[in-house]
Amino acid sequence: MSFSRDLSHVPDDFRVGGFRFAATAAGIRRDGRIDVGLIVAPEGTSAAGVFTTNLVRAAPVTIAEQRLALGRARALLVNSGCANACTGPAGDEATARSTRALATALGVSEAEVLPASTGVIGAVLPAERIEQCAAGLAAKASERGFGDFARAILTTDRWPKVAWRRVPTGTGSSNLLVIAKGAGMIHPELGPPQATMLAFAVTDAVLPAAALKPMLARAVDDTFNACSVDGDTSTNDAVIILASGQSGHRPEPSEFEGALQGAFGELAASMVADGEGAEHIATIRVTGLETREQARQIAKTVATSLLVKTALYGKDINWGRLLAAAGRAGVPFDPQRASVRVGGVEIVRDGGPVGAGAEARANEVLAQPEYAIELCLGDGPGAFAYRTSDLGHGYVDVNAGYRS
Amino acid sequence: MSFSRDLSHVPDDFRVGGFRFAATAAGIRRDGRIDVGLIVAPEGTSAAGVFTTNLVRAAPVTIAEQRLALGRARALLVNSGCANACTGPAGDEATARSTRALATALGVSEAEVLPASTGVIGAVLPAERIEQCAAGLAAKASERGFGDFARAILTTDRWPKVAWRRVPTGTGSSNLLVIAKGAGMIHPELGPPQATMLAFAVTDAVLPAAALKPMLARAVDDTFNACSVDGDTSTNDAVIILASGQSGHRPEPSEFEGALQGAFGELAASMVADGEGAEHIATIRVTGLETREQARQIAKTVATSLLVKTALYGKDINWGRLLAAAGRAGVPFDPQRASVRVGGVEIVRDGGPVGAGAEARANEVLAQPEYAIELCLGDGPGAFAYRTSDLGHGYVDVNAGYRS
Repeated sequence: MSFSRDLSHVPDDFRVGGFRFAATAAGIRRDGRIDVGLIVAPEGTSAAGVFTTNLVRAAPVTIAEQRLALGRARALLVNSGCANACTGPAGDEATARSTRALATALGVSEAEVLPASTGVIGAVLPAERIEQCAAGLAAKASERGFGDFARAILTTDRWPKVAWRRVPTGTGSSNLLVIAKGAGMIHPELGPPQATMLAFAVTDAVLPAAALKPMLARAVDDTFNACSVDGDTSTNDAVIILASGQSGHRPEPSEFEGALQGAFGELAASMVADGEGAEHIATIRVTGLETREQARQIAKTVATSLLVKTALYGKDINWGRLLAAAGRAGVPFDPQRASVRVGGVEIVRDGGPVGAGAEARANEVLAQPEYAIELCLGDGPGAFAYRTSDLGHGYVDVNAGYRS
Repeated sequence: MSFSRDLSHVPDDFRVGGFRFAATAAGIRRDGRIDVGLIVAPEGTSAAGVFTTNLVRAAPVTIAEQRLALGRARALLVNSGCANACTGPAGDEATARSTRALATALGVSEAEVLPASTGVIGAVLPAERIEQCAAGLAAKASERGFGDFARAILTTDRWPKVAWRRVPTGTGSSNLLVIAKGAGMIHPELGPPQATMLAFAVTDAVLPAAALKPMLARAVDDTFNACSVDGDTSTNDAVIILASGQSGHRPEPSEFEGALQGAFGELAASMVADGEGAEHIATIRVTGLETREQARQIAKTVATSLLVKTALYGKDINWGRLLAAAGRAGVPFDPQRASVRVGGVEIVRDGGPVGAGAEARANEVLAQPEYAIELCLGDGPGAFAYRTSDLGHGYVDVNAGYRS
């Protein structure tokens, strides 16, 4: 899956009808980088979202979800540098104050401003810093401001994450832009069916809120919900879609959903490739189980195994670790029938090694930045692909001193 | 929990009636270290074992479990340097040949020789090397040879792991010696109720096999089954107990079980402290849930969280990671009622931070080699304690290049 590490792939004339974007340095982050992003939507914009299934949920998650019951929104207010999670009533009030300031600056209802936050858990959002910059932020929002927005929401990410699509319809086309962040605490379980990954999709297609929600849930299922950096599901994961209808086009739902899923897949790949300290992105494809859910369970267990991830970092196809992880997933299969392929090189057949030559070729594959590992565990129809990153010294450096 | 990193704690006169031990360098390991250990038991020795619940099981696990159906054994043959897992019929045959060689050398039935292996997955045990050394190994077995045995079974361990107990009875006492190994692929789930950790207990108490098995299962439940280094359950985990009866004493079952559990707890602590690259051992104690199983599920999720383990490595009490891990465990609790204590220092109360002063004191605790972290999540009776290690650069070094 190709993805871009900058914004050069977005055509100069690309706009999503009705949406404007802005970012500023409000002083929430200690390092002075831009840390607040705003998306302004036109009247009549429909909205839907899916959020973390973690029982511990940040104030902005609770509030955004409540407000999305309306099925519409006029703005998205996102900050980095502070997750505003585990902050109790003071955290709720801080999120409410910050969205109230933007509502006033934009002349919209507070209930139509959706909040999202990412950063350290346990600190209350300094709402007064957002209040101070609200008017300036609202004033500078522009159709091409999405690059600034994409950079404002980054934390340990190394690059901004933007995907775009033109979705053709019978009479023309509509536009889709998705902006995401995420490099750590990445193991989204968005519900229902079940991300601090954040992803914000805006489109000028005509799509009612009732159609957006199930479409969103399906599109995250084998994209954001099928990727992991560290196995830790965040308190702040959120995926929100806004549809302004300003293109006047009503896309074929399946076509639009395909575009959304494609953009989400591209960004999930970018997130995993940008996993903290990661040098490689591996797609763990598990096939031959009875059901897709069984295949997902095994793929997830292999993709989150520390022994697998450190072996990938070492560029050493220690396939025993792959099978050992599959074997503890709680799903029945016959190990004697297992085969393993790395980038098309078969290294395990009938549960045992093919030979040292094959393993040497597989290790060459592991030197590539991106590859697939396939575990075929039977002849059933159940299959699932899960994206993961290698894990090495960079991860330890980022996470042993993140707060310090 | 105190444990020793050498054998100096074992009294010079300590013996377990009827048992003899030996070790040798058979050339299975590439580095020439001793790699085969033998325990010889007298006639009439009862035996029981619990083994990995991983679906992918090494040949020695399958064979030892089958043979334990007899409820008796005359020898334990253990090698490091080769797990003999994922090796198919050739692996089964290699294990059978190696135990046959020892059975011949000892003049016992092959079915009474229990095998165990640890090392790299996927290579077939070189049985001919054990055949070559079998007679010599059997000849040199001695009552005080357990130190050599303990060293022969180590892999990435930094120190040998031996615990001993004298179990008093009404008319005298019996002796218990437990020898373990394990530093990586440590997340034992021994079944049923559910380790490549290996642990071998020998006692001269009079205990029938029927009494040994349930006692063993209970003793592993909150010791080996409540510790994790990397979250990866091995294909080769085995805990085996042999009782020779040679002391002539019949211990009070609860008293013996207490001694067994104490020795297992000591060795589980030693294993976690010796976790690959580990510098700290943390006991994650979760209280206030409705059931012990709920508390276990949360304790296990926190204890295996990469973000938690890297924070412990960084000696930074990033408590948001503790609560975020608890929140994704799939167990209901009220986050607003959560409190967190680190070595007795309360840092979270009613779901929010106590203050910077408390966190500074907690970080001093994290500089200690051993400490407890307590999450109180309600007022129910369900509690569980799970041992874990910090995870840093040492772990990556060990695991990115283990096979090379």
